[in-house]
Amino acid sequence: MNPARTASRPLSRLLRPVSNARTAFRPVAWQLNRHLHEQKPSKAQAAAQAVAESSNPALSFPCLDAVESRSQTLSRRSSSGPEPSYTSGKHQTFHSDGPLLLDWGGILPEYDIAYEAWGTLNDQRDNAVLLHTGLSASSHAHSTAENQKPGWWEKFIGSGRAIDTDKYFVICTNVIGGCYGSTGPSSKDPANGQRYATRFPVLTMEDMVRAQFRLLDHLGIQKLYASVGASMGGMQSLAAGTLFPERVSRVVSISGCARSHPYSIAMRHTQRQVLMMDHNWARGFYYDGVPPHAGMKLAREIATVTYRSGPEWEQRFGRRRADPSRPPALCPDFLIETYLDHAGEKWCLEYDPNSLLYVSKAMDLFDLGQDHRTRINKVREENVHKLEKLAKSGKSLDAATGAADLCTLTLPETPYQEQETTAEASPGNVTPGKIPSQIEPPADLVAGMKPMASIPTLVLGVASDILFPSWQQREVAETLRRTGNRNVTHIELGEEKSLFGHDTFLLDLEGVGGSVKDFLG
Amino acid sequence: MNPARTASRPLSRLLRPVSNARTAFRPVAWQLNRHLHEQKPSKAQAAAQAVAESSNPALSFPCLDAVESRSQTLSRRSSSGPEPSYTSGKHQTFHSDGPLLLDWGGILPEYDIAYEAWGTLNDQRDNAVLLHTGLSASSHAHSTAENQKPGWWEKFIGSGRAIDTDKYFVICTNVIGGCYGSTGPSSKDPANGQRYATRFPVLTMEDMVRAQFRLLDHLGIQKLYASVGASMGGMQSLAAGTLFPERVSRVVSISGCARSHPYSIAMRHTQRQVLMMDHNWARGFYYDGVPPHAGMKLAREIATVTYRSGPEWEQRFGRRRADPSRPPALCPDFLIETYLDHAGEKWCLEYDPNSLLYVSKAMDLFDLGQDHRTRINKVREENVHKLEKLAKSGKSLDAATGAADLCTLTLPETPYQEQETTAEASPGNVTPGKIPSQIEPPADLVAGMKPMASIPTLVLGVASDILFPSWQQREVAETLRRTGNRNVTHIELGEEKSLFGHDTFLLDLEGVGGSVKDFLG
Repeated sequence: MNPARTASRPLSRLLRPVSNARTAFRPVAWQLNRHLHEQKPSKAQAAAQAVAESSNPALSFPCLDAVESRSQTLSRRSSSGPEPSYTSGKHQTFHSDGPLLLDWGGILPEYDIAYEAWGTLNDQRDNAVLLHTGLSASSHAHSTAENQKPGWWEKFIGSGRAIDTDKYFVICTNVIGGCYGSTGPSSKDPANGQRYATRFPVLTMEDMVRAQFRLLDHLGIQKLYASVGASMGGMQSLAAGTLFPERVSRVVSISGCARSHPYSIAMRHTQRQVLMMDHNWARGFYYDGVPPHAGMKLAREIATVTYRSGPEWEQRFGRRRADPSRPPALCPDFLIETYLDHAGEKWCLEYDPNSLLYVSKAMDLFDLGQDHRTRINKVREENVHKLEKLAKSGKSLDAATGAADLCTLTLPETPYQEQETTAEASPGNVTPGKIPSQIEPPADLVAGMKPMASIPTLVLGVASDILFPSWQQREVAETLRRTGNRNVTHIELGEEKSLFGHDTFLLDLEGVGGSVKDFLG
Repeated sequence: MNPARTASRPLSRLLRPVSNARTAFRPVAWQLNRHLHEQKPSKAQAAAQAVAESSNPALSFPCLDAVESRSQTLSRRSSSGPEPSYTSGKHQTFHSDGPLLLDWGGILPEYDIAYEAWGTLNDQRDNAVLLHTGLSASSHAHSTAENQKPGWWEKFIGSGRAIDTDKYFVICTNVIGGCYGSTGPSSKDPANGQRYATRFPVLTMEDMVRAQFRLLDHLGIQKLYASVGASMGGMQSLAAGTLFPERVSRVVSISGCARSHPYSIAMRHTQRQVLMMDHNWARGFYYDGVPPHAGMKLAREIATVTYRSGPEWEQRFGRRRADPSRPPALCPDFLIETYLDHAGEKWCLEYDPNSLLYVSKAMDLFDLGQDHRTRINKVREENVHKLEKLAKSGKSLDAATGAADLCTLTLPETPYQEQETTAEASPGNVTPGKIPSQIEPPADLVAGMKPMASIPTLVLGVASDILFPSWQQREVAETLRRTGNRNVTHIELGEEKSLFGHDTFLLDLEGVGGSVKDFLG
């Protein structure tokens, strides 16, 4: 037992009854709390305590009380009932009996894709729009008869809306690796009946897209009218166009990129690290116990910082404190802090922590460059034997399952060569002035995106976005033009149009919705 | 006991011998590790394990192994020897017997200021330059005879350098609240002989500056040639000019601000939260046990993201992986991740966690606006009785201690009025187009900075800085001009000059050092 922690316990117990997040704004509790803060004991008490009295009162930590209290509640629940379910509501499910070989050599022996759809598929089956989600969003992009809760793009989808359900059959899937009904780390591995947890294999955007296209096969959709997505969905939309150019008529990529850059990786890295450092994460094996809700809360708070912009918060929160009559505190104090705290609280039990790790990592790994593809194709070739092994064990490998993936491989143009291990670059190598927005799109990326040379594409970026900065969408557009694509529409919403940063795609019906509507026609 | 964690333990034990941060790049360890990854047991083993074998191998977590290993080492140390000392080396110490009344009502009954100095104080005692540090930096700005380790501004200070020790007597202090020898949370409270921990009172930039000026009194320096600082030091430099205008001849404020804006508060908030969530933090009472090294590591990783810029990392790290021959991992994998991990590792035992909380919070609270000052002056008046109480108990309150502070109070121009509690602003209130750089400096800030109306000031900003964005330095310069100050020099280093973001002040001898040299003359 840690002596320091033992020492602090009586203190926290003393303060707990009057200081928790829920009572923070109640005048009565505050009066009590202020009393403690000011420590005005009776004269008799004062005399008795004089020796040990500190110069100043101890601070209280209502934000930690709240976390500890939730742990206790969850602990009671986990010993008495089922673990939380992460599904977002009613949806349809496509089950693939055939296995999926993943880019980095993992195998899903079989899998589910949970999805929702709106509008009607026409007789020619050529009016389907595949909508890709962001990291934490579910297939519930719009309300349905079965689930009337508004979706995350409720006002962007519908009759006469940006994606017009009078014209299009809109499909939105939950990605594999996620937790809303599609196979992910919280699913049971058919090989042993146990939850995958961190025995789930490393995933890529392309793996998610291949799984989606099996659903399209199942629905009899040979060619999409459009592939549409924002944020992570903007990556997937480009991946769909690059992997299956013959099956995609149009691509819309909003606030996405063609390859994750190191700053975005860094921001996701810190989220994964705080989550993995939560003891309750237990290296991924928490499904029968208390989930790492504190780590998830922290991860979401960090993510929220990357989703919005400074100028927006300047206007919205400024330097206002949640309760200006109280003295400053180390727990949330400024309004911006209570906003972040609330964002973390809302989310910490809404999404499977392992899904966050795998899907976030898949985003980091995204790179449409030719070098990367060449390497991945090589890795895939090396792992084909895993499918054969499954076939011997009785799994059927028809054209619609594993074998089909092999046919879509783009064979490397040059033999694969092992890259040298690179030492850490020295700061002296950085050249001021060569900022990414001024650099030519690399030939490697132009080669990798060549399959999209004849697909009309809308690329949309937002100047106030720090997670997917607008130079990345300029890079996508310029790269596509270099492939010879003459139908590239690039729109950048400046700070005079939106201060909502990365989240603009969720909020801007005119700038984002209007552009999508114009493009889809 | 959490059943999930129990279940995962055997797995982590199995992997630990071959997977920790130190062996990550060793070929032999990697071969062993790969063996585990691919799980190729003997035929007999395979038969025995067939029922339980998962579809894919479990991932390993060398980054968590490293943290657990450090906890064990620290636990052994804390039970057998003294806790880590955070002092930065040899320094001089000024001890104030007199108490310090802090802005938010806290009291330091007595305190130390640890400092270092270079150059020679002239007979007129008018060539002193007070250098303010950043959050985590110590007084060791330059090597000394007693401590020859290079300082954090080694090349900026010296004969003929940006701050020329042939001309100036340069003093750099460790802030109160910190851990490098000046009184902070790890110091012992004279009232009860115990470490303050989180019984340390909430601090402000102004409190730190008042303590520094007591040192100047002690040294017989009535008026500074210049007050110079970057980052947090840039805030303090402005605070010095505002609090003691008659004692400061020139102000240099680099990558600082006149009031912390919500985005910076948000970024510091996440750092404090990850630290406080570390169980070892124990609400601040960890001094006899294992310090919250994991939380400190995470906090530093997040801080590092805010200190640099995306374009720099694009050039320096790009998408290179630490070891491209290995499969992707959830622990640090891309070079940028190993860089962040290393930054966290280096720092996690170098600075007192409680100091980080208090000093970081003091930065959030910084606001040179008149409304804030009026309120604080009111709070200070209400707490003067605490000094009187100490005087009765035998403490001497001479002109150089508590009483002096009262004399420097700017009395409120209007009576204090309690502010209304503000409800959370709705997102609908945000007006696109009104970005801070285009907004006039608020009258409140102009009024608050009025004391600096006749102090020549250099304000320097860096366009690639996201923590103290360059519109904040434009705000400082414009505000000063509105006070009637005709000697404001504002320099902004564009992206063509520096991609180093907030850290530019540590690296750019020409852009930063040259500008300071020109200004000091």
